[in-house]
Amino acid sequence: MKLRYKIKLAYDGTRYAGYQSQPGSISVQQVLEEALEYVNRSPVRVHGSSRTDAGVHAKGFVAHFDLDHKIPTTALVRAINAHLPPDIRVMGAAKTKPDFDARKWAKGKEYRYFLYNANILPPHLAPYWVSVFRKMDVDAMQKAAKYFIGEHDFAPFAANPHRELSSTVRNIFDFTVTKNGPRIVMKVKGDGFLYKQVRSMAGFLIRVGQGDEKPEAVKEILDALEPRTARVPTAPGKGLFLWKVWY
Amino acid sequence: MKLRYKIKLAYDGTRYAGYQSQPGSISVQQVLEEALEYVNRSPVRVHGSSRTDAGVHAKGFVAHFDLDHKIPTTALVRAINAHLPPDIRVMGAAKTKPDFDARKWAKGKEYRYFLYNANILPPHLAPYWVSVFRKMDVDAMQKAAKYFIGEHDFAPFAANPHRELSSTVRNIFDFTVTKNGPRIVMKVKGDGFLYKQVRSMAGFLIRVGQGDEKPEAVKEILDALEPRTARVPTAPGKGLFLWKVWY
Repeated sequence: MKLRYKIKLAYDGTRYAGYQSQPGSISVQQVLEEALEYVNRSPVRVHGSSRTDAGVHAKGFVAHFDLDHKIPTTALVRAINAHLPPDIRVMGAAKTKPDFDARKWAKGKEYRYFLYNANILPPHLAPYWVSVFRKMDVDAMQKAAKYFIGEHDFAPFAANPHRELSSTVRNIFDFTVTKNGPRIVMKVKGDGFLYKQVRSMAGFLIRVGQGDEKPEAVKEILDALEPRTARVPTAPGKGLFLWKVWY
Repeated sequence: MKLRYKIKLAYDGTRYAGYQSQPGSISVQQVLEEALEYVNRSPVRVHGSSRTDAGVHAKGFVAHFDLDHKIPTTALVRAINAHLPPDIRVMGAAKTKPDFDARKWAKGKEYRYFLYNANILPPHLAPYWVSVFRKMDVDAMQKAAKYFIGEHDFAPFAANPHRELSSTVRNIFDFTVTKNGPRIVMKVKGDGFLYKQVRSMAGFLIRVGQGDEKPEAVKEILDALEPRTARVPTAPGKGLFLWKVWY
């Protein structure tokens, strides 16, 4: 009998080619599956809630897997972490229903994007913050972010809209941009995101903040279903955190 | 004519064998001197305020050097940083007196040591925080820290007291231990510190926090000038920051 567990995972994506296993590169999933094989004493396949890109970080990634033996969750967390490098940590675990699916059952996700708006990026923030030198207009960014909220066809902000498995319509529940000194944080919550959608929206908001685009341009691009151009750059992966997944 | 400059430096010590150049390993000084050679167009020797150990970080390290040409400080900071990796940053620069000496003129230094007292160390804190699982008695640590304050012979808390160039007497101005959730921060200010003194004091305070030593033991060891034993462990370098140097 298989026993299904869900875990909350945090990781520093710097060293990894993303969450999902790919030939010829090290992924978070692969490292996690190797740790779980020790614990379970036979191979374990881990199913993640999301496919984060290379360099992207996570604070509250959710995954599920099946074990052959029942293990108390505290012992399970300790055992997995003992076999993981310090840049990947299981923050919590719970036994769950046998049909729980970390990806399919997700009702919503929150991502955060971190910008540091100053001449010099302190070294201890360098792995997690993206440096922007030019003074940003955060009010314009907040105004632009509001245009993303609601149900839209986000194809103009997807990397490969024609490669998406189903519809490119998604619902964004909330999108805020806040500033504290040089620290600008974008927080976006939605029912799901297309491939590279969050980084594309962040990339566009950076251009708005720098005065290269008007906030209303978000609405125009969405309404016109404008094909992807250099107008929408993809912001670097290292500034992005998968913050939370809820069910 | 040589022109003397002082800079404030921040670095993530993870990748470096310490501040000072040593054969066969990469130091912060070496990387900095290579960047300055580009800027100055001939070799520059950098003189640091302190010799931080392998893995130790800095937020406000001070150094001085001489350039062949006068360069405005804003341009100088930008030029050096353009040739440095992101884990070393010049945070500021100023032209200074020709006899300014970053080490000899220092009147005091502040170090901070970061402990994370919980079962799981989040991956994004892993490079800068040292994990302690056992519940710490912070009041006992604070009490113990107070015994370090004042002028003492710190030989019992030095790595190699007989190798120190002059006296092993130092004056500690202040030493506090504070807690905020799982985060315990030790802050120590003094006129100078012996080799590995801060990490040794931190290592002893960790033992006090875990109940392995009484706070009064600090006074006993100092008064008795007790030879160094396993009673005084050296806490890991990665939890230590050179925070500030003043003149």
